[in-house]
Amino acid sequence: MAQPAQVSHRLSLAIFSVTVVAVLGIALLASLLVRRNVEKQHAGVTRADIPESEYRNGFWGRYFPRQYDSYRKTGTVEFQSKYGGSADRDMLSEDPRLVVLWAGYGFSKDYRQGRGHAHAVDDVRKTLRTGAPTGDDDGPMPSACWTCKGPGVVGAMKREGIDGFYKGKWARFGKEIVEPVGCADCHDPSTMDLTITRPALVEGLAHLGRPLEKETHQSMRSLTCAQCHVEYYFDKKESGAQHVSFPWHRGTSCEQMEAYYDTIDFADWTHPISKARMLKAQHPDFELFLTGVHAERGLSCAECHMPYQTEGGQKFTSHHAQSPLNNVARTCQVCHREETADLVADVYQRQDRIAQSRIALEKALVRAHVEAGKAWQLGATDTQMAPILLGIRHAQWRWDFAAASHGASFHSPVEVSRIVALGLDAVQQARVELARVLAALGHTTEVEYPSIATKADAQRFIGLDLEKINAEKKLFLDQVVPKWLLWAREHQLIESEPVGASKL
Amino acid sequence: MAQPAQVSHRLSLAIFSVTVVAVLGIALLASLLVRRNVEKQHAGVTRADIPESEYRNGFWGRYFPRQYDSYRKTGTVEFQSKYGGSADRDMLSEDPRLVVLWAGYGFSKDYRQGRGHAHAVDDVRKTLRTGAPTGDDDGPMPSACWTCKGPGVVGAMKREGIDGFYKGKWARFGKEIVEPVGCADCHDPSTMDLTITRPALVEGLAHLGRPLEKETHQSMRSLTCAQCHVEYYFDKKESGAQHVSFPWHRGTSCEQMEAYYDTIDFADWTHPISKARMLKAQHPDFELFLTGVHAERGLSCAECHMPYQTEGGQKFTSHHAQSPLNNVARTCQVCHREETADLVADVYQRQDRIAQSRIALEKALVRAHVEAGKAWQLGATDTQMAPILLGIRHAQWRWDFAAASHGASFHSPVEVSRIVALGLDAVQQARVELARVLAALGHTTEVEYPSIATKADAQRFIGLDLEKINAEKKLFLDQVVPKWLLWAREHQLIESEPVGASKL
Repeated sequence: MAQPAQVSHRLSLAIFSVTVVAVLGIALLASLLVRRNVEKQHAGVTRADIPESEYRNGFWGRYFPRQYDSYRKTGTVEFQSKYGGSADRDMLSEDPRLVVLWAGYGFSKDYRQGRGHAHAVDDVRKTLRTGAPTGDDDGPMPSACWTCKGPGVVGAMKREGIDGFYKGKWARFGKEIVEPVGCADCHDPSTMDLTITRPALVEGLAHLGRPLEKETHQSMRSLTCAQCHVEYYFDKKESGAQHVSFPWHRGTSCEQMEAYYDTIDFADWTHPISKARMLKAQHPDFELFLTGVHAERGLSCAECHMPYQTEGGQKFTSHHAQSPLNNVARTCQVCHREETADLVADVYQRQDRIAQSRIALEKALVRAHVEAGKAWQLGATDTQMAPILLGIRHAQWRWDFAAASHGASFHSPVEVSRIVALGLDAVQQARVELARVLAALGHTTEVEYPSIATKADAQRFIGLDLEKINAEKKLFLDQVVPKWLLWAREHQLIESEPVGASKL
Repeated sequence: MAQPAQVSHRLSLAIFSVTVVAVLGIALLASLLVRRNVEKQHAGVTRADIPESEYRNGFWGRYFPRQYDSYRKTGTVEFQSKYGGSADRDMLSEDPRLVVLWAGYGFSKDYRQGRGHAHAVDDVRKTLRTGAPTGDDDGPMPSACWTCKGPGVVGAMKREGIDGFYKGKWARFGKEIVEPVGCADCHDPSTMDLTITRPALVEGLAHLGRPLEKETHQSMRSLTCAQCHVEYYFDKKESGAQHVSFPWHRGTSCEQMEAYYDTIDFADWTHPISKARMLKAQHPDFELFLTGVHAERGLSCAECHMPYQTEGGQKFTSHHAQSPLNNVARTCQVCHREETADLVADVYQRQDRIAQSRIALEKALVRAHVEAGKAWQLGATDTQMAPILLGIRHAQWRWDFAAASHGASFHSPVEVSRIVALGLDAVQQARVELARVLAALGHTTEVEYPSIATKADAQRFIGLDLEKINAEKKLFLDQVVPKWLLWAREHQLIESEPVGASKL
């Protein structure tokens, strides 16, 4: 038998050991409880039984309910931001100068703030730019105008071939392209991998020496967006196809794309007042993003526009693509430890400052077009006008490049400022030369600035008959579109009303 | 007596308690060992036996050797940055357009990149702008030109009164102001507190409704710098004093200061070619800093230009005021976890982009001056020219505001871009009007752009006789300055050669 002293000694050792283990154990447990399980299982990236030819977003959504539910929010208007967001703003009413700058081009009829992905099909039908086709071979726009509107394009291209798809009129695919931008535009139905479905991006990346197979998952989180959020033009083929192409042959900067357009002597249209051969910048969002600090730091579009979120312990990518200003906590604040109001104010401050120069550029451009028109009236020659019209073309390209790109003043404020400033230099230089030409033709005073206080004023000034255009559009929306939808439902291309579609 | 079981129970309780205390104690000790003692005693901020009238930096340095040793480094040229740093660059050689823009004003003779604080007195003696005075009442510049050059100003102002100091010629204080920018400019000799010694800042802050007594230690770490690194002008008093003043009466923005100058009809000089009444922007560093994101986040000048450092376990403020690009680890990287090369590249990228618009603005300004000169030659009237000359004044103010401010393109790149863009708009608008005036006077072709490939070309173009100016300056440096130094040494205003003074 052990002596009491020995018992006491052994007991104390045992108690000591148990206590040490207990204290450490409690510490470990506390640590586990406190530590957030940040890298949870990524929800839903598994195989699913989606047929290759299934383009209905709702069908995909049965397998990926969280992604689909978040996507559906792009059909709502939740946020009216000062310069962007998803509201249906009439930009021509807000800034009637645009009507004059785009005179002779569809944008002078109708130009609205872009809305969420789920509105894509609805909005392209409604805009006055697509006109009022009465049949498949009617209307002002080519089939290429569907290219970015929804996943039905993927199927149509597979069936008809790329340039087969790009032939003919826009109305030709009205029955088939009924689901708005969605799942199959960016995902492979068998693996769910991010994938590029639009040939223009693959061709564009080839010009940059970036073969697609070398891209990473992170770069794909921008490239899927870059299928559409880029500058593009319609390359008219001998076959009649209008092939959507990116002018990246020399690079993606404002000047490099312009140099390419100048080399191939491309123009989107000729301005009816100045006779300048114009370029319409689309939305070079990806190109300008590349020049900004967030791209430099390795971010993708998705970090800010489709951030990760957690629901029911599942981490997934929000498919509610939207302005990060609606979601500062999951976007900016992941890196920037500043108050939401301060971060939002910073964005608006950049935009406000750049807006001042952009508006100065717009005003000078309106004057330049009108002064050039006056010079033609007074008998100016092509030789006199050639350098002036080139200046107007280059200046308006810079303005449009900065103005049309969504979020440009935030994505790359110093680059956008540079582009706008050099646009101001170019247009004013053209106006100096115009003043000399006008003087040589006997006009030495200021040319009258048009009275364009409202959109209606400006549209009258350029000779648009909006009453007629609106009446035709109404007929199209009342009579043609319902037939498209009926056909699509019969052929199971939409299950019900497309997500986000408002009453036509 | 207690039973063995009771003994064992008490013992185990005691062991348990000791163990818990020991484990927690070890944990605490480890925590203390691991935690870096970041807020060490601030070195040297103690009372010192410095007489109130002691302005020799070396004398102060005996009590504050670490601060003084770091300050002395401002006398060396360690870093040749692309746009700034402390190198002695001849800006007129690098950009001869400046000569034309400043024609008729001292800066067209000589304009060099600013160097470190320890060079301040040496450089103001050497610049051709201060001329070659032969006696106390001779030379082109007023005594006000000493205001920011060194602590001797504090003593001279105390003795003569503020406007007493501001009377007379620059040469008047050559003997007395011999120590370069240093300790007594920003510190109270009895408490070592940061202090404002220059009246212009106190007056300027009063215009902004910012009484000095409400400032914090952190804001003083910018305001001491703002005594000199600001826009200022000489307010000519009836007494003959040229009172250094900040044009902050309406605010500190580019437009607010311009509006103030316009209201009081102030001009630094009249341009001899265009006859425009010009403004010379000095270095509105503080004003532009206030518009940038680093100011928004509560940083002071000192965070980046005079960061804390540690030597021998003592934390102190480096007084080697310099570009943060020389010291990225202690400046940018305190907040930004990016590689040094990436951070430096970001700064240069902003500067490169803004430089493009700034140079476009310079070129247009040279043309505007020359075209205005032509219009005068052809008989233009004051009425015709008035709006044009106002446009040139406003445009060059914007250019100079952006160009003269040290580090502006980094401190506030979007604001600087805005200012430059609106400068471009203003100068080109003036040129459009000039083209009309010229045409009305019979001249409808381009006015010849001067051939100003080199500084010498440009100085010849504006009629400067540099040979004569240089010869006079040499005489001044050889004969007058040595007498000043002899006097100063005899009166114990310098102990030896001023720190950083190169051989005269």
